[in-house]
Amino acid sequence: MRFATLRPAPDQPPRVALVDAAGQRYWPLDELVPEFQGDMQQLIQDWASLVPRIAPRGEGRLLEAARLAPPIHPHRNMFCVGKNYFEHAAEFSGSGFDSSTTADDVVPKHPIIFTKAYNTLIAHGDDIPRHAGITDQLDYEAEFAVIIGKGGRGITKNNAYHHVWGYTIANDVTARDLQKKHKQWHLGKSLDGLCPMGPWLVTADEVDRDRASIKCWVNGELRQEARLDQLIFDVPTLIETLSAGIELKPGDVILTGTPVGVGIGFTPPRFLNSGDSVRIEVEGMGVLENRVGD
Amino acid sequence: MRFATLRPAPDQPPRVALVDAAGQRYWPLDELVPEFQGDMQQLIQDWASLVPRIAPRGEGRLLEAARLAPPIHPHRNMFCVGKNYFEHAAEFSGSGFDSSTTADDVVPKHPIIFTKAYNTLIAHGDDIPRHAGITDQLDYEAEFAVIIGKGGRGITKNNAYHHVWGYTIANDVTARDLQKKHKQWHLGKSLDGLCPMGPWLVTADEVDRDRASIKCWVNGELRQEARLDQLIFDVPTLIETLSAGIELKPGDVILTGTPVGVGIGFTPPRFLNSGDSVRIEVEGMGVLENRVGD
Repeated sequence: MRFATLRPAPDQPPRVALVDAAGQRYWPLDELVPEFQGDMQQLIQDWASLVPRIAPRGEGRLLEAARLAPPIHPHRNMFCVGKNYFEHAAEFSGSGFDSSTTADDVVPKHPIIFTKAYNTLIAHGDDIPRHAGITDQLDYEAEFAVIIGKGGRGITKNNAYHHVWGYTIANDVTARDLQKKHKQWHLGKSLDGLCPMGPWLVTADEVDRDRASIKCWVNGELRQEARLDQLIFDVPTLIETLSAGIELKPGDVILTGTPVGVGIGFTPPRFLNSGDSVRIEVEGMGVLENRVGD
Repeated sequence: MRFATLRPAPDQPPRVALVDAAGQRYWPLDELVPEFQGDMQQLIQDWASLVPRIAPRGEGRLLEAARLAPPIHPHRNMFCVGKNYFEHAAEFSGSGFDSSTTADDVVPKHPIIFTKAYNTLIAHGDDIPRHAGITDQLDYEAEFAVIIGKGGRGITKNNAYHHVWGYTIANDVTARDLQKKHKQWHLGKSLDGLCPMGPWLVTADEVDRDRASIKCWVNGELRQEARLDQLIFDVPTLIETLSAGIELKPGDVILTGTPVGVGIGFTPPRFLNSGDSVRIEVEGMGVLENRVGD
């Protein structure tokens, strides 16, 4: 199943909707399950009791007539992983923008974890803020994002997929100049609007985690292409690493890292400019497309 | 004024309380202002309308008979600043634990920003989890924390103090081995329970921001001592830097960095062990004391 968050009317709470496999029609969840009045976070938390009651009824409505919101409002910053594909690790380390690399750790020996806050989240179709005057070096990063279902601490690799509720697509947009000059990456990663996400969340049963491939185009030119099974630290390893000392909670989000082909991988770097369009597609999951605003 | 969050009975919401200057008596805020049923976040958000109605009535109750909770539950991760005192910057860079320092940036040229999530927060008197098996190198970091009142973007240094609601004391406990091996600091900083905070929040008018001094003892031995005006990047600079591209919101928390004297500043390093007690005091603000658990 896939679930979107609809952009509410002013002063209304967000509305979760079931979306069909074609991504064309939707059913507001509170019409299918009237007692449910919560947001996506609540849906994931109450998943076990709600799922038996969720089924489309009738023809639904046209999704293109609705406006999407970011699919989830996480209760704490999203966990993000840096340099988690071999070729991208080499690309980033060679770019001059990686202030944390020494000769012996071009490929990380342990997952590199930073965070992005909820203020970065924008929906499919929203403009990515250009942040002119703050950054001249906006860059894209197509990523698989994991949504945690059942929480827990000390989750082992063997059990990790039992804690995955689903997946979505994210663009870990980065202000490279800020990422570099502030050493720790949070600021360059967490400016308002620097995380397009969506268009919706897809439950784990619908994603082929060994073959799911992600592609990213900028203005129609293919820049990134990878499969989820090419991660240096795979999803179970990330969950084991994070949950060792942090109790994961339903609705936690993990951005798993970006493959080779970002803007700073080119010589000279190819940064995003106003009007550029970034399109990220996972076959069978959907398309996340955003234009860089003025 | 100072405000604490009282640990609620099971299934009850947290309760905010006005605390007297001596830190001995308290008045539940919902008894002084019956319409107010919110938490600390709500108090700060509605401050302008609530403050004229907040005054102690009667003798209050004995604080030592209540149990404190962490004073605030932030809506996104707390912003934290690294290497923000000159001598500590040198101490950390020379310790072998700083994976992001090159010869030309022992003293940072720009604020180093990372985050800690709400799961790190514990109250005055709570045990700091030892996290044995995950880390062997727990370290303390006494810090001033700033609580944002009025939100905003593009806040200039000149206006920054208008956006400060108050202050509190924090211990940015760090797992040095994780901080080092994961390169980005989030994981080593954000294990459950690694941020004692409190004992309460103090409104800005009660803190002498030029002279407020912070002291930290481990098992009675004075280890850290500094004044708020010794920060490399002062509070207005931090607010200007963060708010340039991130809209600050009421209740945001900024940990401003720790002075010289942390455990890794010693040779050999002096890490925290089970049973150790870390006591942090700001004259006129209070004492935050926590023992390391088993």
